[in-house]
Amino acid sequence: MSVYIAPQQDTIFVLDQLVELDKLAAQYALEDVSLELADVIVQEAGKLATDVLAPLNAEGDKHGAVLTDQGVQQSPGYKDAYQQYVDNGWAMLTGPTQFGGQGLPNVLGTAVNELWHSANMAFALCPMLSQGAVEALIAHGSPELQARYLHKLISGEWTGTMNLTEPNAGSDLAAVACKATPEGDYYRIRGQKIYITWGDHHMTSNIVHLVLARLPDAPAGVKGISLFVVPKYVLSEDGEPTELNDARCISLEHKLGIHASPTCTMSFGDNGGAIGYLIGEPNKGLNYMFTMMNHARQSVGLQGLSISERAYQQALQFAKDRTQGTRKDGQKIAIIEYPDVRRMLMAMKSGCEAMRALSLCAAADIDKHHHGDSDAKQRVEFYTPIVKGWMTELSQELTSLNIQIHGGMGFVEETGAAQHFRDARILTIYEGTTGIQALDLVGRKTLSDEANALTQLLNEVDSTLTELSASTDKTLQHITPRLTLALQKATTVKNWLLDQGQSDRQMAAAVSVDYLMMMGYLCGGWLMAKSALRAAQLQTHNEAHNQNTQYSDEFLTGKQGTAHFYAEYYLPRVHQHADTILSGLSSTFSLDLEQL
Amino acid sequence: MSVYIAPQQDTIFVLDQLVELDKLAAQYALEDVSLELADVIVQEAGKLATDVLAPLNAEGDKHGAVLTDQGVQQSPGYKDAYQQYVDNGWAMLTGPTQFGGQGLPNVLGTAVNELWHSANMAFALCPMLSQGAVEALIAHGSPELQARYLHKLISGEWTGTMNLTEPNAGSDLAAVACKATPEGDYYRIRGQKIYITWGDHHMTSNIVHLVLARLPDAPAGVKGISLFVVPKYVLSEDGEPTELNDARCISLEHKLGIHASPTCTMSFGDNGGAIGYLIGEPNKGLNYMFTMMNHARQSVGLQGLSISERAYQQALQFAKDRTQGTRKDGQKIAIIEYPDVRRMLMAMKSGCEAMRALSLCAAADIDKHHHGDSDAKQRVEFYTPIVKGWMTELSQELTSLNIQIHGGMGFVEETGAAQHFRDARILTIYEGTTGIQALDLVGRKTLSDEANALTQLLNEVDSTLTELSASTDKTLQHITPRLTLALQKATTVKNWLLDQGQSDRQMAAAVSVDYLMMMGYLCGGWLMAKSALRAAQLQTHNEAHNQNTQYSDEFLTGKQGTAHFYAEYYLPRVHQHADTILSGLSSTFSLDLEQL
Repeated sequence: MSVYIAPQQDTIFVLDQLVELDKLAAQYALEDVSLELADVIVQEAGKLATDVLAPLNAEGDKHGAVLTDQGVQQSPGYKDAYQQYVDNGWAMLTGPTQFGGQGLPNVLGTAVNELWHSANMAFALCPMLSQGAVEALIAHGSPELQARYLHKLISGEWTGTMNLTEPNAGSDLAAVACKATPEGDYYRIRGQKIYITWGDHHMTSNIVHLVLARLPDAPAGVKGISLFVVPKYVLSEDGEPTELNDARCISLEHKLGIHASPTCTMSFGDNGGAIGYLIGEPNKGLNYMFTMMNHARQSVGLQGLSISERAYQQALQFAKDRTQGTRKDGQKIAIIEYPDVRRMLMAMKSGCEAMRALSLCAAADIDKHHHGDSDAKQRVEFYTPIVKGWMTELSQELTSLNIQIHGGMGFVEETGAAQHFRDARILTIYEGTTGIQALDLVGRKTLSDEANALTQLLNEVDSTLTELSASTDKTLQHITPRLTLALQKATTVKNWLLDQGQSDRQMAAAVSVDYLMMMGYLCGGWLMAKSALRAAQLQTHNEAHNQNTQYSDEFLTGKQGTAHFYAEYYLPRVHQHADTILSGLSSTFSLDLEQL
Repeated sequence: MSVYIAPQQDTIFVLDQLVELDKLAAQYALEDVSLELADVIVQEAGKLATDVLAPLNAEGDKHGAVLTDQGVQQSPGYKDAYQQYVDNGWAMLTGPTQFGGQGLPNVLGTAVNELWHSANMAFALCPMLSQGAVEALIAHGSPELQARYLHKLISGEWTGTMNLTEPNAGSDLAAVACKATPEGDYYRIRGQKIYITWGDHHMTSNIVHLVLARLPDAPAGVKGISLFVVPKYVLSEDGEPTELNDARCISLEHKLGIHASPTCTMSFGDNGGAIGYLIGEPNKGLNYMFTMMNHARQSVGLQGLSISERAYQQALQFAKDRTQGTRKDGQKIAIIEYPDVRRMLMAMKSGCEAMRALSLCAAADIDKHHHGDSDAKQRVEFYTPIVKGWMTELSQELTSLNIQIHGGMGFVEETGAAQHFRDARILTIYEGTTGIQALDLVGRKTLSDEANALTQLLNEVDSTLTELSASTDKTLQHITPRLTLALQKATTVKNWLLDQGQSDRQMAAAVSVDYLMMMGYLCGGWLMAKSALRAAQLQTHNEAHNQNTQYSDEFLTGKQGTAHFYAEYYLPRVHQHADTILSGLSSTFSLDLEQL
């Protein structure tokens, strides 16, 4: 089984040099928030991830959650692990202080969440879903609902779920048919929900389901959906779980991966109706879902990074240990010495670093947006589909490279490489498929915005290029011309979209995934170039003062090396996707149904 | 479970218009070989594939082969299916007539093998391995060995296996440690082999293992390997299986996919030594393996097409049936109407058609080579790593798109989409990883050849472009400029390789997979363009004579549509890979081991 170690140095570098955490803390007067604190937090979280969560990952794959007469039984060891996670205060990290949370910014929560998902993605889905419920209640719950549910959700004493999808409805929320009938100060909920992650388990004394349902007089379509709290155990007057509500898991999906994460079909109201409480106003459920969407989607994007990092660490270890062939002097050759294996490892490492840079920058923008920065809000809206779509798509490739590096052993389940590959496969699907993200990016976030956010982003890339062009550093001189060409190409795409895409939305939709992927590779290339620039500056500083910053020379030259590789290996993909976009893919509908 | 139907029309079109089967038959005086025969054969094979093999595919995944006290028990229903396969004469299709085969050309065998692998890849691996044993015995076996083994291997009464890999040796055949000790007119074989596909089963009365081992006085390294026949049951004087040989399966791998194909660890000589017979001369085993390599590698490449075609058919059916969202008139919308879903289906369909064109053209070159065409020999050598490497890599993407089109249901095992994705994952690994293929292509087949074969191929593309440029067909005018640019880029890469790659083999190795992929996309684009050209010509003919050829107008315009899509969607990848190659990936080794 592969060991997992938190990528401490790179996380801190990104928080320091790209996010500029100290500046952010000063600007918003976030007391106690500092790089030093981040360093301690990541280190402590890393211990739990390495020692407790990571070792359970393969076990949970082999012995997934099962449905029993007493509901869902989680994988062996998961309850204890969850308890440690809660006891050490990790559940409450970013929760507001007025509800017992530690009130730390989202960007730090993201840095730590990366580790949980790397260590054990199936496990970490549980707190991830709880966080969605917490957000919804903070933003839209009445003070009474908040008082009854928030403290225990934030402490982790209870967990939360999101109940959206219904049989045969998929991404189509307009088709929600679940019913809510008023009865005194609560509602009776009846209906079925599918694909409910961690919909049941025995790790906590209660589970708080958030459920989309329709009131009797609700309008049809998405404008008639309301959001309800449906606890697994109904609460007593003083807020303690009492009897079982009429809500239960009736089956589990048999899935390709994340076996330890129970994917439940939930049945509400088999015996008269589950007791539920309306969140906010009637018929506003969809809007409320949107509140949480940016964070939830970025969280799934983050999983793409996490599982790629885990796969990278496993591949690296294997490539160092595994020998193949013999040198003339009789020494065995470790496969890491072979150029193609090294290429694959560099593709994984530079890909992970680019994703980490993007996800933490986007996470910091959520913080800035929460503090009222409207530019940041625009960036969050624009980044979110890219973080979700591009990072999860890239994770398919990187977890597959781990198998490839393992050769035949990668195809054998005992090695564990296959598990990461299988687990990763859900990421481009749940919380909105890549196609859904791409439509959001090209439509709402670009065409409907007259490409304003896109232009801002391209301007930011241009600013970095101005800095890069001024540098005489040799590695940077490999990167700058490639990023310049990529930016030019993206600008051409922008103009094409505003011209052709604006007038032909079907064409825009056909090229939307290529647009999303192009933006992902460009953002990654930009942030990697920026990282290399900062690393070069820190090195110059090291030399000038004859002393090291907190970063070793090895780390700083390594950072430049991965940025250089990224420019050579990944930036050509900007052009590839752009060329497909600029063709308009007019051939997409060239075949009739019968010709397909 | 998804239905599978042989892609009859497209197979015949490729055999007719690209392979020019009738011309080939005339040239080599292959009696009875004709397009009409091909049509009948594909149709008949299609029935067995659809009715018998395809329905067993999911069952074999669920109930894979198991190891019992009596050896390996194959999946339920597989023995009967194999018997039908043999009874209908499919095993002997391409076997030489002097050993009871039907003597049909390899290209027809390939057309039919596509169907077996689509229907049930785990099953079809068994005859595929037998074919390797047959080839080795035909090329290198003594008349006596041939007389004793070939008829029954060719009829399918017995199956064959290839025993190369040993524990910890992987692709490194120099490390083969298995021993062969002479004893009278046979040898005693002792040692262990791993990853032996269909190494044991109860479908036939005997299994013929081909085993690499070392004679006592053999030189070290690859020059000291000999090839032996080791039957599961030793033959009596009159050639009947008698007692069990000292060769048995001691464990099965627990794999990500192809569960119905038993992957055995074989132990030879636990009780004194397995009886084996030398094939050909001592110490020439590696050369003999190379004899079979082109065919074996092309067969695995073909599996890439097959599983992609199966995945495509499943995705197409789902996309037609599955609705999501509602039109203003209240009608449900099938997801096939959504541009991004249509894009994915077109990517699958055009990718499959390109792979089919390439694999059948390369297979026909094997026939021509066997008839003494030395140009064809050069093409076979050059095509083989591309067919194996590119087609299996592309199959990863296309089987993944099937899951993506299924959305959440794709991640659920019952749907069956996940099985194709899991099964496909072995293809880029066995019979030489993509990295091994790429090294072969860039080294032996390009640099050591002074790019002679590459130049020939680029000239062929150029000839097609001359024809294309002369056409006034509208669709072709979309394709021609894109293929022209791709050819120019490939020519630049050729010159770069001869210049930079020749002097720096490590650099050539670092970009080798990009080179392989570039060539794959280029070959696909060339053959799709040629298909579109021929389709346009046939259409003109249809119109001029006011009657149809054997191809309907729908088929011919469809062919042009997929070629058009290929040019817009896949040809940009030629430039992407080329740009990475032309960068030299000098950053591949920019990090030391400690920096990774």
